[in-house]
Amino acid sequence: MPARFTALVETLPATVPFVGPETQERARGKPFRARIGANENAFGASPEAIAAMAAGAAEAWKYCDPENHDLERAIAAAHGVAPENIFVGEGIDGILGLVVRLLIEPGQPVVSSLGAYPTFNFHVAGFGGRLVTVPYRDDREDPQALLDAVRRERASLVYIANPDNPMGTWWPAAEIARMVDAMPDDALLLLDEAYAEFAPDGVSPRLDPADPRVLRLRTFSKAHGLAGIRVGYAIGAPALIKAFDKIRNHFGVNRIGQAGALAAIGDPGHLVRVREKVEFSRARIGAIAQQHGLAPLPSATNFVTVDCGRDGAYARRVLNALIERDVFVRMPGVPPLDRCIRIGCGLPAELDVLEQALPGALVEAASRGE
Amino acid sequence: MPARFTALVETLPATVPFVGPETQERARGKPFRARIGANENAFGASPEAIAAMAAGAAEAWKYCDPENHDLERAIAAAHGVAPENIFVGEGIDGILGLVVRLLIEPGQPVVSSLGAYPTFNFHVAGFGGRLVTVPYRDDREDPQALLDAVRRERASLVYIANPDNPMGTWWPAAEIARMVDAMPDDALLLLDEAYAEFAPDGVSPRLDPADPRVLRLRTFSKAHGLAGIRVGYAIGAPALIKAFDKIRNHFGVNRIGQAGALAAIGDPGHLVRVREKVEFSRARIGAIAQQHGLAPLPSATNFVTVDCGRDGAYARRVLNALIERDVFVRMPGVPPLDRCIRIGCGLPAELDVLEQALPGALVEAASRGE
Repeated sequence: MPARFTALVETLPATVPFVGPETQERARGKPFRARIGANENAFGASPEAIAAMAAGAAEAWKYCDPENHDLERAIAAAHGVAPENIFVGEGIDGILGLVVRLLIEPGQPVVSSLGAYPTFNFHVAGFGGRLVTVPYRDDREDPQALLDAVRRERASLVYIANPDNPMGTWWPAAEIARMVDAMPDDALLLLDEAYAEFAPDGVSPRLDPADPRVLRLRTFSKAHGLAGIRVGYAIGAPALIKAFDKIRNHFGVNRIGQAGALAAIGDPGHLVRVREKVEFSRARIGAIAQQHGLAPLPSATNFVTVDCGRDGAYARRVLNALIERDVFVRMPGVPPLDRCIRIGCGLPAELDVLEQALPGALVEAASRGE
Repeated sequence: MPARFTALVETLPATVPFVGPETQERARGKPFRARIGANENAFGASPEAIAAMAAGAAEAWKYCDPENHDLERAIAAAHGVAPENIFVGEGIDGILGLVVRLLIEPGQPVVSSLGAYPTFNFHVAGFGGRLVTVPYRDDREDPQALLDAVRRERASLVYIANPDNPMGTWWPAAEIARMVDAMPDDALLLLDEAYAEFAPDGVSPRLDPADPRVLRLRTFSKAHGLAGIRVGYAIGAPALIKAFDKIRNHFGVNRIGQAGALAAIGDPGHLVRVREKVEFSRARIGAIAQQHGLAPLPSATNFVTVDCGRDGAYARRVLNALIERDVFVRMPGVPPLDRCIRIGCGLPAELDVLEQALPGALVEAASRGE
């Protein structure tokens, strides 16, 4: 008998949070013509970030600075907090895993919304936490229901994304601030703001960086157009930030990613340009959807979640028909959110492909369902 | 009271496995002139890898392929095994953490050598394992003593590095093969071959890739000159390889790193050139050491561990005096290994700095100790 896995590992399923588009392309035997399913930023990174990374390639023989010193300080300055409030990690995904590992004993409850970010659930399961979910309400996460669940379960960890993925909806900053204020002293709110830079002003709340009840998560993967470098960060109370040192992979952030992220922070003008392009793309996705009788949800992100107007099986058929037509898209995983498909803000040429593919996909989805 | 850390996290010290040279430079207020302390490859990566990474910078808006498909296949082909035998992870450091997490319940014994790789110990502690160590013997890890400890403790996990870090010594392949053969069926040998490409022929054993008792670890950080990209891999039995999927950070390997590693595999000639330069540098470090009455240990790595001839306190003084003279070096952490300092195979100009600095450092170390 080979070495035994832990009892916890034995219980874990072999499923993965997401299947990558490359995997699908290999299975299909042909590439997608529109890569608009993973909420990537098709408009790319700042030219300054790209140049910094290209220059950094020749320095890749060195380990990274394990303290992420320069990047942490630049992030702290950009957010008007101290470096002691900043933790740089291997993407929000990596940070979520570390937070769960720091706080959750096997069997302890963790609260999220039914249909919210699957990678968070993956980490909760991976450390033996007991996931407690509350439903979305009108396609938004429900802060009061999340708080009620925290109290009822005496949970020490709760997750919310604002703006939300996969729905693209959002709460104004005041509502999130109210949620933080109402958090029990001995619990932590993970506030995932991966899409914050796409949102209207007044969505990201001002927070007390000494408040141990909330950890704000940001990333270079979305508005900064750097999903491939795996750099995210957390903003929170120093005691929690410092605790990451106990378990993190100290040389785990790659050196080229550090260089790219640092240059990206130094080019805020790029974010302005990206935001304009995303707004334009968002509007066009909405128009394409409406033209074919579908209902785009309002979005504060770089994707538009589109209500297909029937049940999950129908939306799944629309999705599959789009994929067959070389359009990589994804959809929410659970009812009633799964009546929608999620379409990313692609390049104009990609939305041309979408526009051409959608009518046929809808006909096919309707006919297959009869 | 803020959210509580797990009982295990509360017991973990805040120490880090290594302090980076950048941290030391900031504390010193000036840069090192010789960066020869972290076993990096000063001769750099393959020009093809650098070009691939530079080209990849513009594609960094995309997530990586979470299956590492192309890289896994290239690695499998290079080693003559199946892709099902290959796991690509975030450096050997990251893979070590995942293995411990897969196999070790809190309190379970894990065997290593006293003074071996601290990051492995960090992960064992981080998942609550009980580290059991056996001493080095004649500056080499002691396979029989490690096996004896596995049997005595009924341990399911044991670590050995061949060639060894921090001593640079090695066992011939036959000895490692014997160790694998003698492993209990229900235990796993982690065979860390980070430095294998620097070793003479006949050091890396032929292994049965279906044998569940051994997991071979390799990296792009050393001979490939890509420490900054965080890509390592494991070769082992499919059931273990597949289990990583249950807990890994699926999009955690960065896209530029994938491109660099893939190109590096395609340029084996670069390894030949690096190896020549390392051999030359190793010989020169040995000569410099001997010239000043120190005893270089034989090395199968890209560093030379140098016996300073007295106790750990003396070697520590030599080390500190070198650091004061702008030479970044490190040393083993425990007796009797800590009578040595560890000097990396730097560029000729860096060894010039070493050569100039060493006499004064030795004088200072001797005088301070009186």
